[in-house]
Amino acid sequence: MNFELIHQSKKSRARLGKITTPHGVIETPNFVAVGTNGTIKALDNALVSQIGLQLMFCNTYHLLVQPGSATIKKAGGLHQFIHRNLPIITDSGGFQIFSLAYGSVANELKGKGKVKSQDLVVKITEEGALFRSYRDGSKIFLTPENSIEAQKELGADIIIAFDELPPYHIGKKKLTQSLERTHRWEKRSLDTHLKKPQNQALYAVVHGGIDPELREKSCKYLTSLPFDGYAIGGSVGKTKKEMFEILSFTLPFIPRESPNHLLGIGDLESIDLCIPLGIDTFDSSYPTRAARHGIALTSKGPLKVEKAINAHNFNPIDPECICPTCQRYSLGYLHHLFKAKEITALTLTTIHNLQFMCDYMAKIREKIASDLI
Amino acid sequence: MNFELIHQSKKSRARLGKITTPHGVIETPNFVAVGTNGTIKALDNALVSQIGLQLMFCNTYHLLVQPGSATIKKAGGLHQFIHRNLPIITDSGGFQIFSLAYGSVANELKGKGKVKSQDLVVKITEEGALFRSYRDGSKIFLTPENSIEAQKELGADIIIAFDELPPYHIGKKKLTQSLERTHRWEKRSLDTHLKKPQNQALYAVVHGGIDPELREKSCKYLTSLPFDGYAIGGSVGKTKKEMFEILSFTLPFIPRESPNHLLGIGDLESIDLCIPLGIDTFDSSYPTRAARHGIALTSKGPLKVEKAINAHNFNPIDPECICPTCQRYSLGYLHHLFKAKEITALTLTTIHNLQFMCDYMAKIREKIASDLI
Repeated sequence: MNFELIHQSKKSRARLGKITTPHGVIETPNFVAVGTNGTIKALDNALVSQIGLQLMFCNTYHLLVQPGSATIKKAGGLHQFIHRNLPIITDSGGFQIFSLAYGSVANELKGKGKVKSQDLVVKITEEGALFRSYRDGSKIFLTPENSIEAQKELGADIIIAFDELPPYHIGKKKLTQSLERTHRWEKRSLDTHLKKPQNQALYAVVHGGIDPELREKSCKYLTSLPFDGYAIGGSVGKTKKEMFEILSFTLPFIPRESPNHLLGIGDLESIDLCIPLGIDTFDSSYPTRAARHGIALTSKGPLKVEKAINAHNFNPIDPECICPTCQRYSLGYLHHLFKAKEITALTLTTIHNLQFMCDYMAKIREKIASDLI
Repeated sequence: MNFELIHQSKKSRARLGKITTPHGVIETPNFVAVGTNGTIKALDNALVSQIGLQLMFCNTYHLLVQPGSATIKKAGGLHQFIHRNLPIITDSGGFQIFSLAYGSVANELKGKGKVKSQDLVVKITEEGALFRSYRDGSKIFLTPENSIEAQKELGADIIIAFDELPPYHIGKKKLTQSLERTHRWEKRSLDTHLKKPQNQALYAVVHGGIDPELREKSCKYLTSLPFDGYAIGGSVGKTKKEMFEILSFTLPFIPRESPNHLLGIGDLESIDLCIPLGIDTFDSSYPTRAARHGIALTSKGPLKVEKAINAHNFNPIDPECICPTCQRYSLGYLHHLFKAKEITALTLTTIHNLQFMCDYMAKIREKIASDLI
């Protein structure tokens, strides 16, 4: 992987970059869509590639549980298995495991299996985390070593070090202990990776919650190691203001010559706030989940497709949008499909929202190029 | 509409034909996919047109309830509303209303609304049928006249006369009374149609259940009127054998120069049985519904995608299939998507099954051309 800094805005820390991976280029800043199980929900990967989504995020935890990383390796790796010839990033699996225990993504998983989420994390030791599969309750022991090995079997272009996600409400002592363990786990991840780099880039995950001192410590330690990039994980606060403050403080400690990634945040307001701070990539399931709930993103704000007023609107969601949905279908038809509970509604709205995000980021890149951000 | 008889097999009553409509040609015999609400479930109409599906069946009952035929007229008609520039056929709405009362499609609708299906048909009189919307319980009165008018607002290439669907278990006297009313309703449908033909073709629906005398009577009456084609409706028995017998008896009473259509039957076994009898078109939701239940159609029979043995099969469903799914994705990936409960699984399997049906019918047409059927 190669990261090239193309332009540094004169107005802020915003910057333009280009990440070159074995499966192509990611222009930064950019939005990263989430395809948890190796597909963006309701979409076909061929179509996703066509609309120009440059980076797709797959979840190692889910892929470990189903179909298993060995199966994907046997299929020729994730790119071949899911038919995507553009860059992919995988996470370490840690986030899902710990958030299952602490609840932050429990809603996403609720109802997907018979096992209660609070029973899923069995034990966390220095070695790693023992948890149960949400599918069948079978035990899986995830460590820095086997998370990286699983990610090597998947073969994504960018992989992420195994970290501990501490609960939000803990004191400084516990947070410090968690940070130190995370650092040991990330070092072990790096050591495992360096034995067989396999043309993959490894990102570290900066932690420290909303404690500036710990964030600084985390950056200093992790950037002393030869990671290829730096993701920002852990809690960044409860409000946009807290997020803005802690990221404003943290980002200067990440080397300019390395790409960075903000984990799990990608709503438009956060993107607008974080671009001037120099964030390169954002992943979020917000635009695709919103689509499945009937929210279409537009330059005039989110549009609730099922609102009665849209029933007789025979223009596209956005007349200027170049997505396959806007090129072919009216808002009235989409409204009808949602009302009739047709799956097609989810597909057509999701592709629009992804196109919207791609276009939104392209416009941001244009503004940075002109020093307008 | 124009129907051209291209070849009569020397071996059976099987025949090759060509139906020319304002939106293009339907080669017969052919399979007609069901897109109840103006979309084939889990598919995008643009893709459906691309794979070469020549005729799509939409349900007037469903479209009346949501979004309403007036809305579709306002949108420029069904073709424009749903973005399909190829032929469409609509039914009269009668089948759904009566089958709701008598239970045969109740399963399809179950759970879609709060109103119990047995309470949906309020009253049937000589004038028409009063029923409740399955969506909100509001009353709708459907008559031959307003069914045709609704179908004129929808603007399909082929429309169908309003008929009564009698319950399966009734005696000859009641069946005869029902048939006579159906004939009066179909005549009223025709009269309404002829006032404003609007470049649409109107098919009659032959009834008479499994009673040869009544089938003959129905054919003789309806073919004495200037309908453009003849659909075969009502009960054709409980077994394939009964179906074969009553259709063998009935078809010779339908003029060779008119196209015919077998309503609601389109499984492969029935198609194979009925082609030699001279059936021109078949509609069925079987291939698309099967796909959503994880059944892929193949030349070697139906394939259950979720079977464990498919997890490590990295070949397409059918290596010779030209559908977008088989060109891009493996059976193992589809297996994974079904296991992970991804909507994408439904889309990818549905498009394959539709392609399979298109190819299956093309092969049948080739065989008829060579007098092999």
